[in-house]
Amino acid sequence: MTALEFARRLRGRQRTIGYWVVLDDPVATERLARLGYDYVAIDAQHGLLGYEGVRNGIIAIDAGNQAAAVVRVEQNDPFAIGRVLDAGATGVIVPLVDDVEGAERAVAATRYPPRGRRSYGPMRAQLRVGPAPAEADEAVVCLAMIETTEGLRNVERICAVDGLDGVYVGPSDLRLAVGGSTSTDPAVDGVFEDAVRHIAEVARASGVAAGIHTPDGATAARRLAQGYTFATVASDLVHLQQAALSHLETARRNA
Amino acid sequence: MTALEFARRLRGRQRTIGYWVVLDDPVATERLARLGYDYVAIDAQHGLLGYEGVRNGIIAIDAGNQAAAVVRVEQNDPFAIGRVLDAGATGVIVPLVDDVEGAERAVAATRYPPRGRRSYGPMRAQLRVGPAPAEADEAVVCLAMIETTEGLRNVERICAVDGLDGVYVGPSDLRLAVGGSTSTDPAVDGVFEDAVRHIAEVARASGVAAGIHTPDGATAARRLAQGYTFATVASDLVHLQQAALSHLETARRNA
Amino acid sequence: MTALEFARRLRGRQRTIGYWVVLDDPVATERLARLGYDYVAIDAQHGLLGYEGVRNGIIAIDAGNQAAAVVRVEQNDPFAIGRVLDAGATGVIVPLVDDVEGAERAVAATRYPPRGRRSYGPMRAQLRVGPAPAEADEAVVCLAMIETTEGLRNVERICAVDGLDGVYVGPSDLRLAVGGSTSTDPAVDGVFEDAVRHIAEVARASGVAAGIHTPDGATAARRLAQGYTFATVASDLVHLQQAALSHLETARRNA
Amino acid sequence: MTALEFARRLRGRQRTIGYWVVLDDPVATERLARLGYDYVAIDAQHGLLGYEGVRNGIIAIDAGNQAAAVVRVEQNDPFAIGRVLDAGATGVIVPLVDDVEGAERAVAATRYPPRGRRSYGPMRAQLRVGPAPAEADEAVVCLAMIETTEGLRNVERICAVDGLDGVYVGPSDLRLAVGGSTSTDPAVDGVFEDAVRHIAEVARASGVAAGIHTPDGATAARRLAQGYTFATVASDLVHLQQAALSHLETARRNA
Amino acid sequence: MTALEFARRLRGRQRTIGYWVVLDDPVATERLARLGYDYVAIDAQHGLLGYEGVRNGIIAIDAGNQAAAVVRVEQNDPFAIGRVLDAGATGVIVPLVDDVEGAERAVAATRYPPRGRRSYGPMRAQLRVGPAPAEADEAVVCLAMIETTEGLRNVERICAVDGLDGVYVGPSDLRLAVGGSTSTDPAVDGVFEDAVRHIAEVARASGVAAGIHTPDGATAARRLAQGYTFATVASDLVHLQQAALSHLETARRNA
Amino acid sequence: MTALEFARRLRGRQRTIGYWVVLDDPVATERLARLGYDYVAIDAQHGLLGYEGVRNGIIAIDAGNQAAAVVRVEQNDPFAIGRVLDAGATGVIVPLVDDVEGAERAVAATRYPPRGRRSYGPMRAQLRVGPAPAEADEAVVCLAMIETTEGLRNVERICAVDGLDGVYVGPSDLRLAVGGSTSTDPAVDGVFEDAVRHIAEVARASGVAAGIHTPDGATAARRLAQGYTFATVASDLVHLQQAALSHLETARRNA
Ligand SMILES: [Mg+2]
Ligand SMILES: [Mg+2]
Ligand SMILES: [Mg+2]
Ligand SMILES: [Mg+2]
Ligand SMILES: [Mg+2]
Ligand SMILES: [Mg+2]
Repeated sequence: MTALEFARRLRGRQRTIGYWVVLDDPVATERLARLGYDYVAIDAQHGLLGYEGVRNGIIAIDAGNQAAAVVRVEQNDPFAIGRVLDAGATGVIVPLVDDVEGAERAVAATRYPPRGRRSYGPMRAQLRVGPAPAEADEAVVCLAMIETTEGLRNVERICAVDGLDGVYVGPSDLRLAVGGSTSTDPAVDGVFEDAVRHIAEVARASGVAAGIHTPDGATAARRLAQGYTFATVASDLVHLQQAALSHLETARRNA
Repeated sequence: MTALEFARRLRGRQRTIGYWVVLDDPVATERLARLGYDYVAIDAQHGLLGYEGVRNGIIAIDAGNQAAAVVRVEQNDPFAIGRVLDAGATGVIVPLVDDVEGAERAVAATRYPPRGRRSYGPMRAQLRVGPAPAEADEAVVCLAMIETTEGLRNVERICAVDGLDGVYVGPSDLRLAVGGSTSTDPAVDGVFEDAVRHIAEVARASGVAAGIHTPDGATAARRLAQGYTFATVASDLVHLQQAALSHLETARRNA
Repeated sequence: MTALEFARRLRGRQRTIGYWVVLDDPVATERLARLGYDYVAIDAQHGLLGYEGVRNGIIAIDAGNQAAAVVRVEQNDPFAIGRVLDAGATGVIVPLVDDVEGAERAVAATRYPPRGRRSYGPMRAQLRVGPAPAEADEAVVCLAMIETTEGLRNVERICAVDGLDGVYVGPSDLRLAVGGSTSTDPAVDGVFEDAVRHIAEVARASGVAAGIHTPDGATAARRLAQGYTFATVASDLVHLQQAALSHLETARRNA
Repeated sequence: MTALEFARRLRGRQRTIGYWVVLDDPVATERLARLGYDYVAIDAQHGLLGYEGVRNGIIAIDAGNQAAAVVRVEQNDPFAIGRVLDAGATGVIVPLVDDVEGAERAVAATRYPPRGRRSYGPMRAQLRVGPAPAEADEAVVCLAMIETTEGLRNVERICAVDGLDGVYVGPSDLRLAVGGSTSTDPAVDGVFEDAVRHIAEVARASGVAAGIHTPDGATAARRLAQGYTFATVASDLVHLQQAALSHLETARRNA
Repeated sequence: MTALEFARRLRGRQRTIGYWVVLDDPVATERLARLGYDYVAIDAQHGLLGYEGVRNGIIAIDAGNQAAAVVRVEQNDPFAIGRVLDAGATGVIVPLVDDVEGAERAVAATRYPPRGRRSYGPMRAQLRVGPAPAEADEAVVCLAMIETTEGLRNVERICAVDGLDGVYVGPSDLRLAVGGSTSTDPAVDGVFEDAVRHIAEVARASGVAAGIHTPDGATAARRLAQGYTFATVASDLVHLQQAALSHLETARRNA
Repeated sequence: MTALEFARRLRGRQRTIGYWVVLDDPVATERLARLGYDYVAIDAQHGLLGYEGVRNGIIAIDAGNQAAAVVRVEQNDPFAIGRVLDAGATGVIVPLVDDVEGAERAVAATRYPPRGRRSYGPMRAQLRVGPAPAEADEAVVCLAMIETTEGLRNVERICAVDGLDGVYVGPSDLRLAVGGSTSTDPAVDGVFEDAVRHIAEVARASGVAAGIHTPDGATAARRLAQGYTFATVASDLVHLQQAALSHLETARRNA
């Protein structure tokens, strides 16, 4: 899937499923990118890697030759966004977008003038997209995370921002935002699920993609069934830990 | 568990269960080292890391403060063995030991003169073991891999080598060695299982530890029940891939 | 000392002594963390390391299993603060805090909503602190550097900011701020010492910790005797240079 | 050429020629720094390296013992600027300076108080410059990039900012800013060349250095002849690709 | 081109042209791998990279999705050869092969038992080749460097070694071996060219591939015309230096 | 001091004093190289760095522009020796040389044919030495470590090996070799000091340099006074630890 194809599928609100990477190992990332996921997202905000890790991870995803490379950037900052696009990311997930100004700032960082304020220097990206900024803009997606009280309150206005390709729910932060005492606190299930549903509906009504972070394939399926157009299964570190712990328990139990 | 305690458990043929690391990420390795495994083995032969990765991985295992750090070294070479012991490994698994000479070479690399030929410079290791070489020797284990036709033929003599603390079965190479057309070829199950049993019996008779590589906790349990004294579940890369693939299938099936 | 114990000692204004790391070598950092210092601070502002260095340094400090890991962050920025807390730092020293707004911004970055604005994703930190954000908040300390004219003028108001655990004097910048022509200019000793005393008194009156950067153990002792509750001896690079130079002079003089 | 000599040549509007590095390899960078260029600029904005790469690149340039090390920083940010000066850069090229406020912000980040707001901690830089901040200020140059519509409009006022040592034209962004549909679009040659000429004239009138990015030595020569006082030939990645492609075509044509 | 296709082209003595990488930068390597060269060879002997560099370079070549990845290994050592094959190299160039024993040792390291002695663990390689060792053997090429007096004397016998896929001339070492006082000494042109011709003829007669290292496309073309079946243009570091120097001279001459 | 000057001073048995680096940080290494030591030795055997660390360390030493870069190689292996010479080391210290064969093997690895067997590819080294192998040979020194029972017994014959530039005493291993129960065991002082004296005398008689590892400047001075022609003060990690511990004790004692 080329960057452009991915961007079009996302914008067309066709379903895609992704995987979430927080580890700093290109070999693992390449493997994950070869499994059939539509995209692999590298987490530069809470993940455990710096710039070299993100750059090598994007190359590794491209070596898999199947999945689109997406990066959740460190913060809503023009350089943080520009540098991963230069390195070849197909899209960015921008954390903690609270309002229209935040969404506009994010969008501007992903498009060249006159549409935005991205600075020209697609050192690695130009391998895949033509030299015309307008073409490059077309092949890049900008997704805003809805995960704060303010973001939730402003979700309609955020979805209406010109050039924003979709929203992305961060369930841990959102659950805390709606009053959870932990990131998985079931006590706020009602209000949390309402919020999750509301965001999907607003996105649908606005014609933008609606994505969400999920801990496993079953939850991903449920969210897609619920109206989300893309869902990411997270994360390599957690799944590895779960698998290794499960093997240990089996070994101990049966030995 | 201190290095010395681990060495004593292993030499006392008490059961231990380990996990196998081929990834080059200290954060993942530390997590794995905190799950309750008795040891974590970093693979410098077929793993995907160089010296910095092994060094940082050993530090990460120690940061977990539970599991002993073991390294499968690149090859049966005094420097390859010495450098990971200097970096703080509690033991080495030495690949492709074919005969008495190979086993003696491996043992000599793990002990200081006059017992062996290890060169003095325990830059990080001395954090945990006292300055006396004899004490350091006591806290280090040397394990020889039995995984070739020659190694299998010479297993009694290898087990009898003074200072060798145990043998370790490499099932993939061993299965190919006994005629398998792939590393998991069921056509040679009979001769392979005979070999696996034989190695455990020889180790028991010789009073040395018997270890084996396994793909999952259930196999580890089966091998321990069969007389192996330690078993490693392998590996992070494979388990991560399995988990991620399973989530994708679940998501696709139910979406 | 757990993160929580360190936080409590610091908040209780009990004396602690730390060491300052600017080098990018986890083996050295681990060694320093094993000497008995209460904390080791990694300098991400003027130090010579990037994110990987900070991350590996925190793991190395934890491998020492004695000292608390603190990071002087690059700047007063939510992501710079959040990422090192996610990586397991027990506390942050935030440079160049000039006023109440700066202090509040720093505090907010270290606490989860509703207390602050930290985003949830404690990838490595959760190894040590429970999943409840309130608990995590309790085990993290936020220290504001007083090192500019504005900061000095606003020190009372800064100390009164809710959630701020202490102030930390940066003597080089502060001496320049009070008119020094170099970072050690003795011509401004009077006004500089007055400022240093004043900051300690304000912190005492406000009930928050008072810390200071020092070049050696003797100065650290003097500052503690003077009312500072924590002092850091700095730095590895300088001390290494001093030691190596001293050995050279001895060798040349006597050879 | 010492840092101070380079700063004086630049401020004296004497001609210098530099080379532009986007690769993350200190061996290549050192080689390039030994060819006779007056300066080598490492690109931390669009280049493909993180902090370690920039730090090691500056050391490599110094190992060449000929060229001054300059860094195009990530963005107009005090920390981004301070950290490369601490690492030993002789000067910074600050991207996307739009107005007086941007230029003042850049200048302030390169000078210690009371002239600016640079924080003290020249960990590597102090190897070459004395301890007096005023001396260090003297040996550091600050260059503002003119590459946006706003920057072009405000170029006189930017050139008049006290402490700014020069301006630097980013032709790709500037060409897009003046309406180009690609970064090399010949359709806007007229307005683009006018802008380039205008910037050089304004700089000359203001007595500051005028620099420009160029794709090859011939263009660099042309720009110098046109009144620019420094020109950078860019870049290693592009020239390497051109050379390798040319060899392939020769080989294929003649084989 | 898949690994198997490359192996077949090479064994079928069809012409291929490659490029030689000594730099430690995956972005540059990927670019070079996208230009249309049939293979890109990473130099682990005289190149300036360690294992991580080689591993990341192979991933980068695969990200280019065109060229086969070849590695000139450090030395004729089973582990040095096995590790790069595990990392996904399609072939190895083994330096300093002097005689039949050396060639057999090299071949054995590239094939699994019973054909050779490669140990099983194709952690990254298995992404592309099936699990059957026999299949993997088929998709891997082993090339022996002829570059010493002994190697030249034994070239017929070396070419006759079963499983060897080709020979590769190292002109610098070979020229010194035939008496050159420098690696490019024209005084020995006669005997050197005789040797080069002789090696190509022996390879042709033996039915194995004949390759050679060249400094530019014209020389590569000449060697192919002369009977060599593959030629590598070398190297990135040298070509980059040449290009940058040429731009400097142009700039200086015309400014 | 150029490589050639250093080689001549060493061969001329003029006194030189060096410093020993085991840390993996180029900034620290550069600082140490600027203090006035005649050489800085990077320890690739017991040090805590891999190839990248050694390469970057050599560049850092050269950035200091004063000290010669020497590497204690991993083992007596042609590739281990050749790669650091290619990276620009002025000399190698080869561990564990037991006999004439070992010394000859070491020497051969440092000289080009016909004097030795070094392979041609001085990628970084050629920056400083001319293209003629004979000249390069002249500017490289080969030092054999005497640190085993066999080495001590064979020291006359080792010193007589053609091309060997000196011997280097490894006191820790040597003390163990002469029967010490620890690397500093005073019980064997007599026999150890006899051995140390003997080696210096043999070297003097043979006309080669005599060097020794020492823990501090005073010991270095004593060894030079005793007839050694060069002495290394070791090491950065130990001295850093000593300094930090001493500051802690001072702070605790006086606070
Ligand atoms: Mg979030
Ligand atoms: Mg095996
Ligand atoms: Mg400061
Ligand atoms: Mg620009
Ligand atoms: Mg060669
Ligand atoms: Mg030794």
